[in-house]
Amino acid sequence: MDFHPQPRLPRGFSCAARNIGLKESAPDLALFYSAVDAETAALFTRNHVVGAPVAVGREMLAGGGTLRAIVANSKVSNVGMGDEGIADARRMGAAAARELGVPVEHVLMSSTGVIGRRLPIERIEAGLAGMKADLQDDPVVGARGIMTTDTHPKALSCAVGDAVLTIVAKGSGMVEPNLATVLIYIFTDAKLPGGLLDRLLRDAVDVSFNMLSVDSDTSTSDTCVLMANGLAGAVDPDAFGAALTAAGIRMAEIMARDGEGATKLLRARITGAAGRDDARRIAKSIINSPLVKTMAYGADPNLGRVLMAIGKCFDCRVDPTRLSVRLNGVPVYDRGRRVDVSNEAELRALLAGDPVDVEADLGLGDGAATAFGCDLTPGYIDENAAYYSS
Amino acid sequence: MDFHPQPRLPRGFSCAARNIGLKESAPDLALFYSAVDAETAALFTRNHVVGAPVAVGREMLAGGGTLRAIVANSKVSNVGMGDEGIADARRMGAAAARELGVPVEHVLMSSTGVIGRRLPIERIEAGLAGMKADLQDDPVVGARGIMTTDTHPKALSCAVGDAVLTIVAKGSGMVEPNLATVLIYIFTDAKLPGGLLDRLLRDAVDVSFNMLSVDSDTSTSDTCVLMANGLAGAVDPDAFGAALTAAGIRMAEIMARDGEGATKLLRARITGAAGRDDARRIAKSIINSPLVKTMAYGADPNLGRVLMAIGKCFDCRVDPTRLSVRLNGVPVYDRGRRVDVSNEAELRALLAGDPVDVEADLGLGDGAATAFGCDLTPGYIDENAAYYSS
Repeated sequence: MDFHPQPRLPRGFSCAARNIGLKESAPDLALFYSAVDAETAALFTRNHVVGAPVAVGREMLAGGGTLRAIVANSKVSNVGMGDEGIADARRMGAAAARELGVPVEHVLMSSTGVIGRRLPIERIEAGLAGMKADLQDDPVVGARGIMTTDTHPKALSCAVGDAVLTIVAKGSGMVEPNLATVLIYIFTDAKLPGGLLDRLLRDAVDVSFNMLSVDSDTSTSDTCVLMANGLAGAVDPDAFGAALTAAGIRMAEIMARDGEGATKLLRARITGAAGRDDARRIAKSIINSPLVKTMAYGADPNLGRVLMAIGKCFDCRVDPTRLSVRLNGVPVYDRGRRVDVSNEAELRALLAGDPVDVEADLGLGDGAATAFGCDLTPGYIDENAAYYSS
Repeated sequence: MDFHPQPRLPRGFSCAARNIGLKESAPDLALFYSAVDAETAALFTRNHVVGAPVAVGREMLAGGGTLRAIVANSKVSNVGMGDEGIADARRMGAAAARELGVPVEHVLMSSTGVIGRRLPIERIEAGLAGMKADLQDDPVVGARGIMTTDTHPKALSCAVGDAVLTIVAKGSGMVEPNLATVLIYIFTDAKLPGGLLDRLLRDAVDVSFNMLSVDSDTSTSDTCVLMANGLAGAVDPDAFGAALTAAGIRMAEIMARDGEGATKLLRARITGAAGRDDARRIAKSIINSPLVKTMAYGADPNLGRVLMAIGKCFDCRVDPTRLSVRLNGVPVYDRGRRVDVSNEAELRALLAGDPVDVEADLGLGDGAATAFGCDLTPGYIDENAAYYSS
């Protein structure tokens, strides 16, 4: 899959971002807009405690629907605020609809940031006024507008036939999406019917964002939306699905590498599992293990951490006498026994690089999966020891 | 439950520890001995990848049995070494049996430390010679002999009628026991039949060590053994079970507070869950969440982290509109809405102390559980970024 050197938005899509004083000076309010109706599929967090925008969005997009715009703010997530939170979310959507001249039921809201603080709704309403004039076609502007603790804006795009597929996302912390994820907005000018869109989105998310974990914590605001406005005409659904999956995996890797405090991408590739579910659980167990994550941080060739993380999947089939493990391509465990690594210095040098790749062949069947994580560093702790306060 | 100010071993039990050069100067080989046969119940790790001593011990103690001694070394765990590892474990048991003049099938072995290195069996055999003469009755000596990254030896004892109950343990990292735990040796001179012993051990472990997690990682060497030599005669089983549970919870708290890098104990008490399983999962989810753990470290009154950790238990019943949360006794969330904390400075001061207590009432049923964890600090990362190398 070739991604555009400079990401761009598909035909008919535009975005804008502003600082309205929620952050010191960085953009904290973003707007994404389609000039025509876009068929939309959406997935939301499985967390039982959800933000008001997620509750409203679920209602709006249950079983798919049509969108014209997304409005998103950072710093305050509008979670845990009861009926007042729901009313504030609706006011935010209505203000964006007024500004853009589109129906209120075609505007989705997202809020991320601290839980348990009231949304600064007056400031958002005032901030949206006149923002239509700022709309432009660089997706990085919108990506910058939805950043929280991300260290860089996240956007990529690629061609699918005559159409363009663009993903704008933010990740960083509280990231183990499950049937949905963080904030991920996907735009295309391909023409695809609603039902198919939903299936393609689920399939792609399943092997990309649902295999991503920065810290095993699932956000209350995770939202993944795919808008297709059809301006480029029909495309081959299989080609579109393949591009969506490849772009999703690429973005999941970008998000993992920029996890809070992370210095590198940690990937776990499982093959030979008894089934696909086993492979997924074991891959996740490896990238979520604090001991594997600190091993990756320290470039410590500690095979024991990997064996432990595989073995603790109690509900999966694991037979140590059939298991083989490689670290960055170097065999370190072969069916029940440690492999003596002749050149440990070389292995350490490999682990000091980015990414750290753990491959395990369980030798049992044909279940396979790859999970995307990052190392655990003092930076993660610095970031989160005073998240609420800062 | 009153614990002895100075822990002691029950009648007939003794222990010894030596340095045999695996660590620089601290004791690294420990021996625990009963002068008469002891009825024994044992639980081992559920990790699929197990150390050779666990494989041999499981075989030896399946369905209970009799023990006279336990021999344990630190620094090398004898995991991932194939048939050679099994042979080394057996040699270690045989050497201890020779030294003590007891049947080899009545000696249990434990090894903890790095995975994937050969056990220094010759050194252990040489080190055991003459060790019988060192046996004495202070359990702290044995506790010191099994320490890995623990910062202090862990032993406690209490009276049950005329009998004494003593727990010697080590914990620190790779600690989320599951149906077993870390190294925990429990000794009593109470007379209790084998079958009852097993049930009492399972019941106690269920609410103590199985609710303990330092880092969500389950060791390949976890072993929990209860030896009852009967020298104090029969005791009331209910009183014994209550003492075993209380002592187990106390030791779980001690182990959590001394988790790698930890500065404080983190407890989650769940009430009002739909069932006991839900309560246990939610309590574990809170103490295992990196974001709750860093919140505890930073004394950041970040209610959002707690709501997230409860809500991400997808398979449990959670209704935010019935949920209430207290942090160190201060109500912060009340059925769907944040409680405005009038004195946030006071709450911060409470969270800066030790322990940090999170209480959540789900308002759904009578399921209850308490889990024991610790904060996540830069010390955990320092400890584990070069564990294999150091």
